[in-house]
Amino acid sequence: MSRELEEGTELKLDFTKLKKVANCGEDVLPAVAQDAKTGELLIVGYANQLALDTALAEGLATFWSTSRKELWIKGKTSGDTLKLVEIRVNCEQNSILYLVEPQGAGACHTKGASGHARSGCYYRKLEADGSLSFVAGRE
Amino acid sequence: MSRELEEGTELKLDFTKLKKVANCGEDVLPAVAQDAKTGELLIVGYANQLALDTALAEGLATFWSTSRKELWIKGKTSGDTLKLVEIRVNCEQNSILYLVEPQGAGACHTKGASGHARSGCYYRKLEADGSLSFVAGRE
Repeated sequence: MSRELEEGTELKLDFTKLKKVANCGEDVLPAVAQDAKTGELLIVGYANQLALDTALAEGLATFWSTSRKELWIKGKTSGDTLKLVEIRVNCEQNSILYLVEPQGAGACHTKGASGHARSGCYYRKLEADGSLSFVAGRE
Repeated sequence: MSRELEEGTELKLDFTKLKKVANCGEDVLPAVAQDAKTGELLIVGYANQLALDTALAEGLATFWSTSRKELWIKGKTSGDTLKLVEIRVNCEQNSILYLVEPQGAGACHTKGASGHARSGCYYRKLEADGSLSFVAGRE
């Protein structure tokens, strides 16, 4: 991912995302991870049956990486795992919510000004002029 | 939607959801609505450019209905609108987060035991035996 996309203030939304996701070769649904204590929305990923089964077996938020096309136990490599507190499903049973307790620095792969991983991926907001700005404390 | 799917305790996840979404004829990305005050994750929907533009113009959380294939200003008909407080984007700019103030009964189209719309769609949790149970207070 480009630095401009992740650290810039220009809105460049990729509306083709779900077409790419659908072409990943797996049947997946959206899987949202939320901090069970703070309520912060950490990350939106995708899960197939294997990811859900693995999440239950490991007790860790698990996704299917639709870009790398592989199972993705969040933080398994970095140590920034998301311990599973509860799994919820929506009314229509076509998405899941992982309520989690982050065990490491943060759930986002980007680093903030402190040099540590950001707690979650939603660290920028859309301004009235169409630009992005960093949410206070998440620069 | 069937009552069993929405009010039942059997897990019947639709893992084909994103294939259907990708075939809706529009370029969309996930759009999550979260209660800005309580932190409750209300609903996961999808947005195209028109939905985002409409959200900004109306000040209301707006989605693209991938099943009805039309613009969907949440609650415009029922009165249960979600007033926009802020829009956030994720690191990779392929999803958006609507931080909202619910103006009506609730964001979910299902009704709880009280007869009112449920505040959000994630009112059931997955139990260890693989069944679903209702979250306390959201029956």
